[in-house]
Amino acid sequence: MHRVVIVGAGFGGLSAARALAKKPVEVTVVDQRNFHTFQPLLYEVSTAGLDPADVAYPVRAIFGRTPNVTFRYGTVDGVDWDARTVSLEDDDPLPFDSIILATGAVAKYFGIPGAQEFTFPLYTLADARILRDHLLRRLEEIDAHPELINDGTLTFVVVGGGPTGVEVAGALAELLDVSVRHDGFKFDRAQAKIIVVDGLNRLLTPFKVSAATYAADTLRRRTVELQLGRMVKRVTPTCVELDDGSQIPTRTVVWAGGVTVDGTVASGLGALADRSGRLVVRADLALPDHHQAYAIGDAAAVPWGEDRPGVTCPQLAQVAIQSGKHAAEQIVNRVKGKPTLPFRYNDKGTMATIGRRAAIAQFPSGMVIRGTLGWLSWLGLHLIYLIGFRNKITVLVNWSWRYLSWTSGPRIIVGDELPANPEEEDHGVDQPAHQPETVDSPA
Amino acid sequence: MHRVVIVGAGFGGLSAARALAKKPVEVTVVDQRNFHTFQPLLYEVSTAGLDPADVAYPVRAIFGRTPNVTFRYGTVDGVDWDARTVSLEDDDPLPFDSIILATGAVAKYFGIPGAQEFTFPLYTLADARILRDHLLRRLEEIDAHPELINDGTLTFVVVGGGPTGVEVAGALAELLDVSVRHDGFKFDRAQAKIIVVDGLNRLLTPFKVSAATYAADTLRRRTVELQLGRMVKRVTPTCVELDDGSQIPTRTVVWAGGVTVDGTVASGLGALADRSGRLVVRADLALPDHHQAYAIGDAAAVPWGEDRPGVTCPQLAQVAIQSGKHAAEQIVNRVKGKPTLPFRYNDKGTMATIGRRAAIAQFPSGMVIRGTLGWLSWLGLHLIYLIGFRNKITVLVNWSWRYLSWTSGPRIIVGDELPANPEEEDHGVDQPAHQPETVDSPA
Repeated sequence: MHRVVIVGAGFGGLSAARALAKKPVEVTVVDQRNFHTFQPLLYEVSTAGLDPADVAYPVRAIFGRTPNVTFRYGTVDGVDWDARTVSLEDDDPLPFDSIILATGAVAKYFGIPGAQEFTFPLYTLADARILRDHLLRRLEEIDAHPELINDGTLTFVVVGGGPTGVEVAGALAELLDVSVRHDGFKFDRAQAKIIVVDGLNRLLTPFKVSAATYAADTLRRRTVELQLGRMVKRVTPTCVELDDGSQIPTRTVVWAGGVTVDGTVASGLGALADRSGRLVVRADLALPDHHQAYAIGDAAAVPWGEDRPGVTCPQLAQVAIQSGKHAAEQIVNRVKGKPTLPFRYNDKGTMATIGRRAAIAQFPSGMVIRGTLGWLSWLGLHLIYLIGFRNKITVLVNWSWRYLSWTSGPRIIVGDELPANPEEEDHGVDQPAHQPETVDSPA
Repeated sequence: MHRVVIVGAGFGGLSAARALAKKPVEVTVVDQRNFHTFQPLLYEVSTAGLDPADVAYPVRAIFGRTPNVTFRYGTVDGVDWDARTVSLEDDDPLPFDSIILATGAVAKYFGIPGAQEFTFPLYTLADARILRDHLLRRLEEIDAHPELINDGTLTFVVVGGGPTGVEVAGALAELLDVSVRHDGFKFDRAQAKIIVVDGLNRLLTPFKVSAATYAADTLRRRTVELQLGRMVKRVTPTCVELDDGSQIPTRTVVWAGGVTVDGTVASGLGALADRSGRLVVRADLALPDHHQAYAIGDAAAVPWGEDRPGVTCPQLAQVAIQSGKHAAEQIVNRVKGKPTLPFRYNDKGTMATIGRRAAIAQFPSGMVIRGTLGWLSWLGLHLIYLIGFRNKITVLVNWSWRYLSWTSGPRIIVGDELPANPEEEDHGVDQPAHQPETVDSPA
């Protein structure tokens, strides 16, 4: 049986695995996490609107009953093209006949000093949880020490005015509202600052100007300050410096400045990368030098196809889903001795939400839906795509509850609950990492 | 205004705070976590039946709109009785006129070598999450390396045959069932071992013999092996040694051997402790030497009261709830210049679940309900007590879903997602702890 290894269980990897289910191939999905992360909703987790588990779905629960798809929990650290094996950290190599590289992307820092060290990216579930804990801790801090307001403890800077930046800023405003209104925090809401910084003169470049203006107006009305046409020059633990020399005292910088592909992916594979690190692929999504290997989603410079020759697709979930399916189909074609076909992106439009009852959806025709209707479309679409029926219900419960009352919500800080040394739990002898118990506090 | 500090937001602390709401006192609840943990369901989290957030509820969401109750996120490290202040780690001391000590308990290891180092307790949300990650990792390991079955990778030992031990063992059997049936794990279910060890000759000593026999029979039918009348002599990373010299190769030992109070609590307070470390209190629950201080719940040797003179209460949620309320009422009595009253425990019975459709509920009259009816009673009672309407719905969703299909469930491993050094996030400069990104794996 033809063996296919899919590296990565994001949108692209899962889409490929689904397309290969019940086909005459043997599929192994490898991921360093045992769950798929629904990345478009990570900003909701980071601002305590959703639980981490709402956006995570065990890969095994998806393919547990699909005989030709198995899951392997492991970290891939290279590919041996001659032996046709994928090497795993601390484990035996996995043989393959075809391979799909769906390794995703990482935050892009443009070499800005301090950006990588002192800002919060929002690309993994861990990122979201770490940011949430940090935000909730800042609120507790300001509650106990109101004088810290001058130190930027209640100033939240979001770098990047794309969809993620807009979504985080809008959700942050809601978190601050509910903290004062329902959680008994005593800070003055009017003194809290949320600032979106972007080098361009407008928000949401993938959208039409009118949609971007609507987003900007909505954010401003919801107390978000916009610093457009400003580049971040430097980030320190206590401030952000802009290119006009101004300094914003803050302890929280969310990095939504774009994504890139870790440069070592391509070099580790002996493959070609484009300027932004993405793997260069042929029209059928195979690597030029390794025709049995396909690269898809955020990791690849996916060509748009015949509708827009020479153009590559943006790093979006839809591209990952479509390119994953395409790569899977080409593998089946090759197994059957048929020629492979070029990829063609089917643009279904873009969406971004600014918060309660405010979102924009732009269709390829140029039509834009916004406001409550846009928000409801956004909500519906995300629930449809949110993998797993159970997650849909609990997300709906979380959202409805928040929308109706906000009295509850997953605003728990779990960071202080982490084991002292998670590495040990990961790789060493299996001794449980014990929590240091504090004398006079509840265990 | 009379200032009351409540140390701990467990069942006892919250019950006390609720009883003081709208009373002529100013209440501060201090906890090192910003959430209440519904401890009776931790075993469900540890066996991937519930999400961590299902059993955690933000304290601020409970008292956010109660004007005289505020929450303080902090770790108490002592009490200055002369200054009447509670000292906090890295923070200014909190003054009080009355104080309620609701600091809970910790696992009791009876000085057994290796027990503290190599077993998993189940007392905090972190404990539950760490155990869940460990269990799921063992399953992944055995899936990739079936030969490890001889090394005890698929042997799970539960020390303690009380309610917690029985519940964990039953839930573990269900986790193993679903792993094979729905998650595509390839191990032979019949080769997996769950072993409950207890020094006594029967399970569930708080229950009647007939109820305990029912539990034992049910567990055995569900593939759980019972080693009763056997003491654990030693625990190592790879085995458990019993008092008859037999060794059980295992990498997973769940410690449900009982709870105690950290001995340093009493000494740190300059207070009296009984044999098991619990704070000795008067009939009205005040400390003998500090009448403005009350100790409640697991942390205190709560007297049963006039129905059973000289007897102290077991460490149960009901005792914590009732003693918390009582202490609060005595503080109000003192503020009003009235005398304090002795505590009297109202025993409402005990429950334990063995798994799906099998639980026992024993009433003070001696009546026992068991089987499906017992299980439904258990389910209903826990949903009623589970704080917060939202949590009730999501728990219900998780449970119904699991009961109906088990196809989904929060079986995600999050441990590998932990920041490299959580301590920094806790106390140091606020730089986000970045994840080491692995080259070829999805970010």
